[in-house]
Amino acid sequence: MKLIRFGAEGQEKPGVIINDKWYDVSHLVTDYNEAFFAGNAINELQTAIEKGGLTEVDQNIRLGAALARPSKLICVGLNYKDHAHETGAAIPAEPILFFKATSAIVGPNDDLIIPKNSKKTDWEVELAFVIGKKASYVSEEEALSHIAGYILHNDYSEREFQLERNGQWVKGKSCDTFAPLGPFIATPDEIEDVHNLKLWLTVNGKKVQDGSTANLIFNIPFLVSYISQFMTLLPGDVITTGTPAGVGLGMKPEPWYLKEGDVIELGIDGLGVSKQHVKAYQKV
Amino acid sequence: MKLIRFGAEGQEKPGVIINDKWYDVSHLVTDYNEAFFAGNAINELQTAIEKGGLTEVDQNIRLGAALARPSKLICVGLNYKDHAHETGAAIPAEPILFFKATSAIVGPNDDLIIPKNSKKTDWEVELAFVIGKKASYVSEEEALSHIAGYILHNDYSEREFQLERNGQWVKGKSCDTFAPLGPFIATPDEIEDVHNLKLWLTVNGKKVQDGSTANLIFNIPFLVSYISQFMTLLPGDVITTGTPAGVGLGMKPEPWYLKEGDVIELGIDGLGVSKQHVKAYQKV
Repeated sequence: MKLIRFGAEGQEKPGVIINDKWYDVSHLVTDYNEAFFAGNAINELQTAIEKGGLTEVDQNIRLGAALARPSKLICVGLNYKDHAHETGAAIPAEPILFFKATSAIVGPNDDLIIPKNSKKTDWEVELAFVIGKKASYVSEEEALSHIAGYILHNDYSEREFQLERNGQWVKGKSCDTFAPLGPFIATPDEIEDVHNLKLWLTVNGKKVQDGSTANLIFNIPFLVSYISQFMTLLPGDVITTGTPAGVGLGMKPEPWYLKEGDVIELGIDGLGVSKQHVKAYQKV
Repeated sequence: MKLIRFGAEGQEKPGVIINDKWYDVSHLVTDYNEAFFAGNAINELQTAIEKGGLTEVDQNIRLGAALARPSKLICVGLNYKDHAHETGAAIPAEPILFFKATSAIVGPNDDLIIPKNSKKTDWEVELAFVIGKKASYVSEEEALSHIAGYILHNDYSEREFQLERNGQWVKGKSCDTFAPLGPFIATPDEIEDVHNLKLWLTVNGKKVQDGSTANLIFNIPFLVSYISQFMTLLPGDVITTGTPAGVGLGMKPEPWYLKEGDVIELGIDGLGVSKQHVKAYQKV
């Protein structure tokens, strides 16, 4: 199943994609939120869909983030060797974790707003996943049963805020519009091998990131188990697994950062494509 | 006004304290959540309270955290010189920010559960405040108008997870039960000078922290303005302002960490007292 949310910002309704058509399911589901993921609602939704009779949605409507605001948006840092290398960082001995503010979450095709006073806004295509069942001290063997689905994420990052403003990465990761999530959540049955997906990103049509989840240092069952040793993961929480090489910070001979008018496109096999137009804060 | 939430975990109802008595206001307010803080609900609640006729609540009932789960729980690190000194850290040139998982939030007198595999669970008495109005790029002059109230917080911290497990403090700050918030939120009119409050903490009756918010390196208007340059603060978000000297990590000749059976009490002038009994994870 592919879950979408459509409509104006703050008024999104839940929907599904079936054979490339979009359908409204707001008569069946309140929202794709903690209560939805915690319960049996995905299965009930599947059953209801099979009965048919859904209303189609015009695809000119805006897509929102494919789930309601989660309790946590947890990021894994430096989880591809080539990306650790390009940033001059060591290969981590165990996962590096940080949070993004959930107020950064926007729809997959919403504008990226360069923050006031930013000079180093950068991109990061990432595979993210959504927790479907509360997870505390779970084993790697149990981990996949705690996942509701997979989703495309662009972990936008302001490198000066992240790295040059006195410790802790959260300052450079949490700006508004820095977390486009979507177009859709794919349930696990839609993805043959989540550890063998191509992911890519272009800036103004030039391919800058071109990786594969086969190269994750720490794989998804390990991450679920590992993170659940430090905190309880709640249904609807999002974990984003890190980015491969090709970010602006790592460009040679010098870094390349975003400016007004740039266009970013990104995608992952089986998880669709998203596209953000870059705007300056003062021009909004 | 002093806002409380009372009742079993997950079923808390909103209440108020008037002349040391507790009253139920659940017929007036759904919960102390984002919608409550965003609107005019505090003023409406005040008007309703003045009319009287509220039902008193037995004080033997459990107190929950004094607000519903916020979108963010933002922490300021090393914001007292004496604490920076005891941990061997430099005085920060600008605020250090990090997040705690909101799943760590519990009631003020709930048990502190030492995480599985923890050897270095530590305490931190802190003054926290609650955002009352959305804040993005606000000035120091405007900052106080964005605050709904003040609250006592114990920023429990696992020092090995925080400092020895590969970067970023979030791992040691986000464990379940690591954020007791309460007993109550005091609205700003209840506090004469928020920058001149004594705050203290005892372990098994021995006073280990004894500070004053007069010694904050970065004061509250500065923090609101500063943080709002990096992310949008939403109504109900909690910001916790750092801890004075006297944490276990800083003890001489050697650090002192919590063990099962310990009892922690803490308080801030005008914001009440909280008390946590320490339990081991496996004994829960």
